[in-house]
This record gives sequence, structure tokens and C-alpha cells, in this order.
Amino acid sequence: MTLEEDLEEAAAHSPVGAEGVHPGLRRARAWLSRAVEPGTVDFWRYVDVVGPVDAVRRIRSGAAPDRVRALVGARAAQDESLTDLRRAERCGARLLVPEDDEWPALPLHALTVAVAEEPDDHRHQSDRTMAPVPPLALWVLGPERLDTLVDRSVAIVGSRASSAYGEHVAAELGHQLGERGWTVVSGGAYGIDAAAHRGALAAEAPTLAVLACGVDRVYPAAHGALFGRIAETGLLVSEWPPGCAPLRHRFLVRNRLIAAVTRGTVVVEAAARSGAQATARRARRLGRQILVVPGPVTSAMSVGCHELLRDDEVGAVLVTSAAQVIEAVGSLGADLAEPPERPSSPRDGLSDVATRVLDACPVRSGVSPERLAAIAGCDVLDVLRVLPALELADLVQWTGTGWRLAPPPKKDAARA
Amino acid sequence: MTLEEDLEEAAAHSPVGAEGVHPGLRRARAWLSRAVEPGTVDFWRYVDVVGPVDAVRRIRSGAAPDRVRALVGARAAQDESLTDLRRAERCGARLLVPEDDEWPALPLHALTVAVAEEPDDHRHQSDRTMAPVPPLALWVLGPERLDTLVDRSVAIVGSRASSAYGEHVAAELGHQLGERGWTVVSGGAYGIDAAAHRGALAAEAPTLAVLACGVDRVYPAAHGALFGRIAETGLLVSEWPPGCAPLRHRFLVRNRLIAAVTRGTVVVEAAARSGAQATARRARRLGRQILVVPGPVTSAMSVGCHELLRDDEVGAVLVTSAAQVIEAVGSLGADLAEPPERPSSPRDGLSDVATRVLDACPVRSGVSPERLAAIAGCDVLDVLRVLPALELADLVQWTGTGWRLAPPPKKDAARA
Repeated sequence: MTLEEDLEEAAAHSPVGAEGVHPGLRRARAWLSRAVEPGTVDFWRYVDVVGPVDAVRRIRSGAAPDRVRALVGARAAQDESLTDLRRAERCGARLLVPEDDEWPALPLHALTVAVAEEPDDHRHQSDRTMAPVPPLALWVLGPERLDTLVDRSVAIVGSRASSAYGEHVAAELGHQLGERGWTVVSGGAYGIDAAAHRGALAAEAPTLAVLACGVDRVYPAAHGALFGRIAETGLLVSEWPPGCAPLRHRFLVRNRLIAAVTRGTVVVEAAARSGAQATARRARRLGRQILVVPGPVTSAMSVGCHELLRDDEVGAVLVTSAAQVIEAVGSLGADLAEPPERPSSPRDGLSDVATRVLDACPVRSGVSPERLAAIAGCDVLDVLRVLPALELADLVQWTGTGWRLAPPPKKDAARA
Repeated sequence: MTLEEDLEEAAAHSPVGAEGVHPGLRRARAWLSRAVEPGTVDFWRYVDVVGPVDAVRRIRSGAAPDRVRALVGARAAQDESLTDLRRAERCGARLLVPEDDEWPALPLHALTVAVAEEPDDHRHQSDRTMAPVPPLALWVLGPERLDTLVDRSVAIVGSRASSAYGEHVAAELGHQLGERGWTVVSGGAYGIDAAAHRGALAAEAPTLAVLACGVDRVYPAAHGALFGRIAETGLLVSEWPPGCAPLRHRFLVRNRLIAAVTRGTVVVEAAARSGAQATARRARRLGRQILVVPGPVTSAMSVGCHELLRDDEVGAVLVTSAAQVIEAVGSLGADLAEPPERPSSPRDGLSDVATRVLDACPVRSGVSPERLAAIAGCDVLDVLRVLPALELADLVQWTGTGWRLAPPPKKDAARA
């Protein structure tokens, strides 16, 4: 069936019937996903207004406004929609459209809200890599439902040229988040991304990689096995049709999706003035939490993280563990992190006077309460008041002639 | 001359004459500094109201209120004031009193303001280790003037059981602050304190150690050489008379002085739930900046630092360099830190369209502008518009049949 025939049939039917989304509608969205680079404000707005089926028909018939036709250019005459859909099917992928039940409408709503604030100005179209535009469709590969997977999800992002420290932390976070039922979302890149995905996989938790190329392409090439494992248990997701190359600007466009579908973004390592700040500001604009892992101030790979934490406008929260990440993005009250523990000491509960009397006690020969009062700089009555409590706590002992520190408890005795 | 004779003469004369502070007044403060533990609210208030000379006379004659006499106890009858002053003289130290020109009145004013808010309640006296009480006198050893030294000063504090990372950072901060004319103030302890002092000394900058024992005592004992070097070029300072032992509670009392005399406190390393938070809160109460150095989240010695940075009530600022410390505590505008640098790239200034066209260019065989437009997903007119700029920037080149990426500039050629 030609594209036009499919579209005509789709236009004549309800877009979503008993059997789900009409195939013509899905084909229209497949065509749109290749017509113009994702993230283009004007194009998304046009499709939003006239609907996907009519948008394709008008663009191809020349009835669309000049501004829209200029965006599509020579691609208006081309049609790879069926090829793309078949290619996806061959590699086990499918095209998810906003009309599907599985579409993560709630998380992506933040982009719909944000794009409404974009200026209606043709010149701003050139900066489309930063615009908060919802996706027109998503090519997904894997057994999980996208909406379920992103419901409780956190993005872990960071430098490709990461340090062993950063990779360790990303893997730990990925593992612990996975164990606690949170989905780790990242970009499948070298370094922090890969470590986070691997951590989640090690916890046998589904993880989600949002790619800047077709889901059938492996970029970087060395990540074939990793992508294979992600696609077995989680999801590979892309706005670009199968076969599309990972062009540089696509990573920037892709990043907004990672921010949008997750509840918060954890930046693990970032170099000085890297893209981390822009990513963080954009996530912030979408109402998402920015969480930042600190590192050694001597590490170039943590400079960007510390910049984020120093920037009041970003409002980033310092995190050191998965529990703190969950506390920040989780439900209020339900996901509170425990404060770090400190070894307890019998001194902990002592009053100030008791502490001073204890400090005044000699190690060997005992001394009188009067002498203790003089050393501790307090009244002898105070000394007599606190000594019984100190003795009960096994901190001081009476030698027969005076008071001294009690010897520390023997480890061996405790074991016996 | 007996203490009473000295006091009588001091009472008959102006406390500060042409030759400076009257010796009887200084002796009165020497006596007071041993009579009650520094940091005691009621005692400081009594001396503040009746004056040091009359305070000593009334306490010794039994005319002081019961509450004050109870604080002094058996020490009322003792007098080591002359011995203490002579002992100080022998080791090259001197007793600085609030009536001296050199007294750092301005920094210590924060304590005077804060102590006024302390409740007038005998029970609260037991918690004197945390009360913000000004010192009654200071024993100092070294060639520098105390007021000059603390004018532009920063405290560097942290764990005694520090890591190599923490010591490296403390020494670097100490060195760089010293080089820039800032005085490093610390407590002379093992770990972070010692590293900070050593860093300042290596920059040949005077540094200040505030001790919790007499300035003639070396605690920890291994710091004899360090204290000797500090006393040669900077200052050792203590509220306790010569010979006094470093009792545990004295460190807490001492800490308020470190916070008060400096413009800000840098916490370099601190274990979980250590004293760092209390110190920070107190410094904050005195209106001082709390600056915190982050570290690896895998290091137990940075847990306390990260707690501080996560605690909104503390209002701590993350710092990674001496420049950022100076920016935080220095004069507005005069001491701004440069943002960290990023290696510049010819891509930096490119528009979004230019970046996409550049990404679309193949490495080897050239392609047509129409092909570039298709790959980059933009209009061929856009491609033709940006190609000249890309060529000028040596990013693309014309092969005779099409456009391709220009080879990267050769390092050897640049060197030649």
C-alpha cells in the first residue's frame, strides 16, 4: 500500500480503535520521524495542530505552510516509512506513538508545557538542539513497557572520559537503584553511562538507554554486548528511525528526553564547563531534580560537578548514595535516607561537667574529688554529683585512696 | 608585690596610660584566666560589668555574688598570676588583654554580640563548651601582632585522622592562601590542621595556631618543630595560662575562638557526625562563612563534609580552591575567582546549523551540498550559507568534487 492510500484509510477511521492504533496513523508518524530532525519547535507545533495524518498529507501535497515545507525540504517527496517500520520489525523493535497506551504521557507532559513557552520566531529554530520539544514518536527495542519503566526512574549521566572513581560510583548507584526497583536511564555512551547501565544489569534490573541513533545501530561500536543485554531485559529508545547515524547534534537533542522521562538526573562526573550545566539547567526547567555526586577537588573529572553545586541558579543537591538519590526524587516521607552512622561511645551522653571530671581523672594513681575539682575547674559538689554515674558507666574507678580512669574494656573478655 | 597591692595600685590609676596597659590590670586578667575555665558565661559577664581589677578584688575578698564565687571555688584563695606571667616571659610569650591596642576587638565583637543572647540561667552554665563567650585574655607567643594577623584570615579545620587527599588539599589551600596574603588559622592538631599550617609556612606566610593548652606546652608532642616554626614567624595563641594541660573539653571551647577571629572556616575533611557540624553551626551563628571541600563519596573522611553541604540550615558553600575561598570571604568584587577553564575548540562559536553541516561532512571523499543538506536535515540554502565560514575556520575543505572534513592540524607543523 502506498503512503497516501494508508493515510487516506487512517483519515477515514478512528485513530485508535479496538485493535489499538490504526496502522496508517503509525505509518504517518514513522514518516514524520524521518522528515525533520526531532526537536524542531515549528514542526512539532504543526503536527500538534493538524494531527499526524493530515500533516503528512498536506506536506506531501504542498498544502502545508511555507515555513513547514522549508523545514522538510527535499524529504517531502521521499518515503521510507514502510522500510523503516519493516527494518524495526526485523530487529525486534517497534514504533511507539503518542496515541499508544504505552506512551509515557505524564513524564513527557513537561516537554509539552515547556515548548509552549518557546518563542514563535523562525530564527530561534536554528537553536533547536536546546528546545524542549516532545518527541513525535519513539522507536523502542526490548521487552519492557516504556511507561512502566520510566514511572520510577532516575537518569545517571556524566563524562565519557570518566575516571575509575566515577565509574565505580556510577556502577554502585546503578546497582543500588536497580535493587530498590528504580529504573536507571542513561545514554549508552562510554564511561559513566555504561557503568550506570552495567550496575543496573548486575542487579538484574531493567535499564533504559536513550540513543542518538537508530536502535539497530551500535554506537559506540564496542557496546554491542551491552546494548544486547539492555534490549533483552530493558529498553533501547530512540527518536530516530532505524539506520540513522549518531550525528553530534543529535546527542544534545536526545539529552532532553533523558531529562524529561526521569524524575531526576544524577551527574556523576563532568569536566570543566562541559555540557553538564546546560543539561542540568534544562532538566531544572522541566521541573526535574538535579543531583550531583562530588569528587576529589584534585580530579579534573569532578570540576563540572563542583561547578554545578556552586551555582545557586541550578539548585543542585549533593548526593553520595542511592538512598539520598531516592530521597530526593522519591515520594515525600516514603523514601527518606538514613543519616550516616557514627560509632557510639560511652562518652556520648555525658554532661559537660561529667566530661570535664572524666578528663581530669589520672590514668594510674587515684586522686581526691577536691583535686579533680581543681583540675576540672568546677565545684567539688559537682564532682561528687557526677562520679557515681561515671563509675556506673565503667569510666572511672575507686582505687581505695582516690579516683582514676577505669582501664578500657578488654576485647578478649568481650569475646569470651 | 602581692596581688592585692598590685590591684590597689591599678584601681588608683588609669587602666591604660601613656605606657600602655597598667601592669596591675594585666596581672588581674592573668589571675582571671586561671580562676575559671574560659567560656563560662556568668563569669565573663561579671568581669564585664565590674571590670577585671574589681572582679579579682571582690572574688578574693568574698564580696562577689555567690554564683560567681561558686564558679571560682577553691581557686579564689590561690594566686599564680605572677608565676604565670614570668613563665610566659621566659618562653617569649606575653599576655594580651582587651585593653591592649593589639587586641582583635572587631573580630571578637561577634562573640560579645552572641553572648548577650545566652540565657541568664545557671543550668545553662554546664554547657559552657558551646557558649559564644569572648576571651578574658589571650596568651600569645610569636613576633606578629594578633590584630594584624587575623584581619585577613581563614580557618582551615578538619579531621585528625585525615587521608592523604585531605592533607594534600589542606596544604595546597594553606600555601595558596599564604601566598595571597591571607593568614591561615588552625588548631595545631594532627592531620588537616598540621597540613594547613605547613602549607602556609611553605609559602613563608605567618600562620596562627590557637591551642587548647598553654602556649609553652607542645600537644601533640610530635609537633614541637611545627610549633617552633609557627612561633618564629606567626603566633601561638591560647586562653589558658602557661602549663595548662590540653583537656578534652578545652578543644571545644577553643574552637569558638578559631571561628570568631577568622572571616570563614574551611572544613577539609570530617568523619560522619563529627564535631564539624557543631563547629560550622557555631561559626554560622557568629556570622562567619562555612566553606566545605568535597571529596570522594567513597571516603569516610569526607562524609561529614558532604553532610554539611547537604544541610540547608548550615548554608555551607562548596569550595575547591583558595581562589574560591577568598572569593567567599574576601571583599565583594575585589576577590572574584575565575571560572575553571575549558580547552577552547574551533567548534565553540558555531551555530547549530553549521555544527550539523560539519557533522554531516564525511572524512574521506567529498559530497555535494545537496547530500549534506539531506544528512544534516536542513535546507540546501542553509548548507551553502555556512560552508564558507566552515572552510575559513579550516574545518571543511573542497576536494574538487565535493566537501569533506579538513584533516586536523598537525602538531609537528605547529611546533616547527
